[in-house]
Amino acid sequence: MSFPEAPEPAEPSTLARLLAETFGTFLLVFGLVGTATFSAAFPSSDTSNPLGVGFLGVAVALGLTVMIGAYAFGPISGGHFNPAVTLGLASAGRFAWSDVIMYIVAQLVGAILGATAIFALASAGPAGFLDSAVKGGFVSNGYGEHSPGGFGIGAAIAIEIIITALFLFVILGVTNAKHAVAGFAPIAIGFTLTLLLLISIPIDNASINPARSIATAIFGGGDWLAQLWVFIVFPIVGALIAGLSYRLLFDGVKYTKTSAAK
Amino acid sequence: MSFPEAPEPAEPSTLARLLAETFGTFLLVFGLVGTATFSAAFPSSDTSNPLGVGFLGVAVALGLTVMIGAYAFGPISGGHFNPAVTLGLASAGRFAWSDVIMYIVAQLVGAILGATAIFALASAGPAGFLDSAVKGGFVSNGYGEHSPGGFGIGAAIAIEIIITALFLFVILGVTNAKHAVAGFAPIAIGFTLTLLLLISIPIDNASINPARSIATAIFGGGDWLAQLWVFIVFPIVGALIAGLSYRLLFDGVKYTKTSAAK
Amino acid sequence: MSFPEAPEPAEPSTLARLLAETFGTFLLVFGLVGTATFSAAFPSSDTSNPLGVGFLGVAVALGLTVMIGAYAFGPISGGHFNPAVTLGLASAGRFAWSDVIMYIVAQLVGAILGATAIFALASAGPAGFLDSAVKGGFVSNGYGEHSPGGFGIGAAIAIEIIITALFLFVILGVTNAKHAVAGFAPIAIGFTLTLLLLISIPIDNASINPARSIATAIFGGGDWLAQLWVFIVFPIVGALIAGLSYRLLFDGVKYTKTSAAK
Amino acid sequence: MSFPEAPEPAEPSTLARLLAETFGTFLLVFGLVGTATFSAAFPSSDTSNPLGVGFLGVAVALGLTVMIGAYAFGPISGGHFNPAVTLGLASAGRFAWSDVIMYIVAQLVGAILGATAIFALASAGPAGFLDSAVKGGFVSNGYGEHSPGGFGIGAAIAIEIIITALFLFVILGVTNAKHAVAGFAPIAIGFTLTLLLLISIPIDNASINPARSIATAIFGGGDWLAQLWVFIVFPIVGALIAGLSYRLLFDGVKYTKTSAAK
Repeated sequence: MSFPEAPEPAEPSTLARLLAETFGTFLLVFGLVGTATFSAAFPSSDTSNPLGVGFLGVAVALGLTVMIGAYAFGPISGGHFNPAVTLGLASAGRFAWSDVIMYIVAQLVGAILGATAIFALASAGPAGFLDSAVKGGFVSNGYGEHSPGGFGIGAAIAIEIIITALFLFVILGVTNAKHAVAGFAPIAIGFTLTLLLLISIPIDNASINPARSIATAIFGGGDWLAQLWVFIVFPIVGALIAGLSYRLLFDGVKYTKTSAAK
Repeated sequence: MSFPEAPEPAEPSTLARLLAETFGTFLLVFGLVGTATFSAAFPSSDTSNPLGVGFLGVAVALGLTVMIGAYAFGPISGGHFNPAVTLGLASAGRFAWSDVIMYIVAQLVGAILGATAIFALASAGPAGFLDSAVKGGFVSNGYGEHSPGGFGIGAAIAIEIIITALFLFVILGVTNAKHAVAGFAPIAIGFTLTLLLLISIPIDNASINPARSIATAIFGGGDWLAQLWVFIVFPIVGALIAGLSYRLLFDGVKYTKTSAAK
Repeated sequence: MSFPEAPEPAEPSTLARLLAETFGTFLLVFGLVGTATFSAAFPSSDTSNPLGVGFLGVAVALGLTVMIGAYAFGPISGGHFNPAVTLGLASAGRFAWSDVIMYIVAQLVGAILGATAIFALASAGPAGFLDSAVKGGFVSNGYGEHSPGGFGIGAAIAIEIIITALFLFVILGVTNAKHAVAGFAPIAIGFTLTLLLLISIPIDNASINPARSIATAIFGGGDWLAQLWVFIVFPIVGALIAGLSYRLLFDGVKYTKTSAAK
Repeated sequence: MSFPEAPEPAEPSTLARLLAETFGTFLLVFGLVGTATFSAAFPSSDTSNPLGVGFLGVAVALGLTVMIGAYAFGPISGGHFNPAVTLGLASAGRFAWSDVIMYIVAQLVGAILGATAIFALASAGPAGFLDSAVKGGFVSNGYGEHSPGGFGIGAAIAIEIIITALFLFVILGVTNAKHAVAGFAPIAIGFTLTLLLLISIPIDNASINPARSIATAIFGGGDWLAQLWVFIVFPIVGALIAGLSYRLLFDGVKYTKTSAAK
């Protein structure tokens, strides 16, 4: 078995980095919105045999998108796939401010393409399927009457700040500890999203990621667009709080090699 | 404790490589079709206690088959277990075109043996079990009235192209980044299938793999065989698109060692 | 892409270590109690489409909190997040007795903050949501009429001793085998909690961790506070049994490099 | 932070190895039978909110027991926890025949202790709980009227041979490829059991492991003991077939370092 020799690799070009962010964010939104739209609930005539994947399946799906994207595209672009992550990393001194805007644009393009693809697929569904998905907000984030569990705007603001800050703390911690955990970072980071969705889907459908929120609100329309600002502003607030405070609290710390619970 | 010394290992023979592909594809189809047939829905008299594993269980099962197969047989054959993967890798310049046909034959043999084993087991089930499984298509892929969720042929074609392309992109990305992620590739690749099934089972029962589609359609018969071409052609189309475009977009890229979200 | 150079790292300060324990225990309680409160059961008008994550989701959530915390904060503090773990490790000779008190205080602070955050979020839920959560014990541990499945105090005592001892045995085993498994320890340790919750939630809502039990009982109040001692005393008993006996049984053992099932 | 230096490690004594097998098999049976007994189905008055973990939870639990056991005890004893594994490894030339009997005895002790612990816990459950668990076979394996899904003896024999052979094939493959996957072996091996249970619980409640089958049949009693021979003989048959044929087919093979799907 002979493989053609790969050409000598070069530093990733800006184009390659942006493409990686676009691909990864496409995967994120396509996976999250696709699972929530098609599989979370699945109509069954036999109530003793539910087949839908529920909130657990949606939470697992989002975690997998980021774990997979980080393994496949992370080595090229860093694997942010999320404007809040990009801003949080920049504020923590781990990412160049000058690259922030182009990363966010690439992420928005990927996110909107991902939601568009699910919209197009849903339009080929059975009669009424697309209408019902759009009327339900097309997996948009929301509070008040648009909260899955009926939670108010205060809860939505608080949860977005907390969970996005936790997410950034994990990212900063895991990628700081260069010693033992190198290849494990995507597992830790991806499944952090799974955990955070397990907590927060009932509250506001879990943003954490303004690009994902924008992409779904476009298709949710009207009411959902009116609430969108919350899911742009507060994930970013949480990310900046984490980025700035992590630097202060832990960045000078010398990590030991002893792993967990030693 | 003394172990007998293993003989000095030799380059894997063609026979060993083909056997590895056959075993791995057997495991894939046996695991996927077995879980879907026996465990997805499970009759229960107590509707407050559903025991079946639903779409989530089926998606997890497929992901595990490929993760496990890649760990156990990947070092021998490369762990394709899927004609679309073999063709996608060849088109990306990562697999010798001259070996493609024999790999696909080995995969088809494994897939058909896997489906046959489940068929035989189902025939030892309670009265009517096998008939009902066959009438339901024996986990075949389908569109229109054979789509689990009632999606048309357009959605089936589109989803197969998209998800198989995403699958190949992940494979090519993960196995390209030789640095940090070596041993993690089977985890990333396997769980990509879990993710893709979470999105796509309701649409067309999720092919991504012509060998799996052929093996189930043989037992589904009639109607399902008539739709089979879609699930041979379009996964391959998706794989070729990914193989050719990955090469173009990313192959000259020098991956950095900084892992995800750094 | 240029990253500002990080300052030369220093040994983690006591403050950094305590902050890491506080953050990690916050994450643990926030994740466990949040998932159990908001997502375990989710009201749905369509009984064929349950969306809640059930005991499986709660068990997965707890496992993820510790896996993630161990990856992110473990290299700083060791990643205990649990007074029973701290005491068990000290009794096994793996942690300095002089640091035990301050670790436990840091863990209690984190746990109580985590439960407080969920309490505040729940208070922004729909009418009656918080009342019902508090009346149900706010995810407190309990036996007898407060056992989820109606198990008595004997079962609660026994299960806490057994599962906390098993947990410590795993921690001590996994972090002892320095050879092959270094980076895998958080996966093994985290998912041990998932396993232990799968067994024990129905019995007493699964403590294993006095800090978590105290934090929830504060909000559960009255009856639950009266039972709290069980969930402080017996996890610690189990941890000490494991710590002392592991040392005796296995600590002089030279681990081979051959991994599982070789 | 100073850790007392561990004593210079010595080769694991026979006692340590047997204790490791006993502990690991205890964990296996305690986890599997505990999850199936307490959590698989959970009575709920609200049918739209099932909380039980179903077959998926049971399959995940077993996989986790072995993954965890392999990480914690594998470096001491090899982490078999299953007489069929011990015999299969011996037949493949990977384990000394002279140690087989003592390993199996240690495994049986652990398995019976594990089932006894669950029996004792169940006896502290609500009225009728233990009776009902015992009447249902106490998670014993069975065929015909004792098959969960009503499958005959032929299906039980076939599935046990096939899945135990697959399990051994994975073990032999994963622990043979010493290169890239060393630390990943417990993940691959553990989740193979998860996969195999997803397929086979409905058929015969999934043995794969004579020690587990013996331990549960003792408490299931009567009818279940009469069927026990099937779940002793055929897992062993499957393991021996795999052990002998793997040696023949793959043992001389030089594994390449290219990982999955390369």
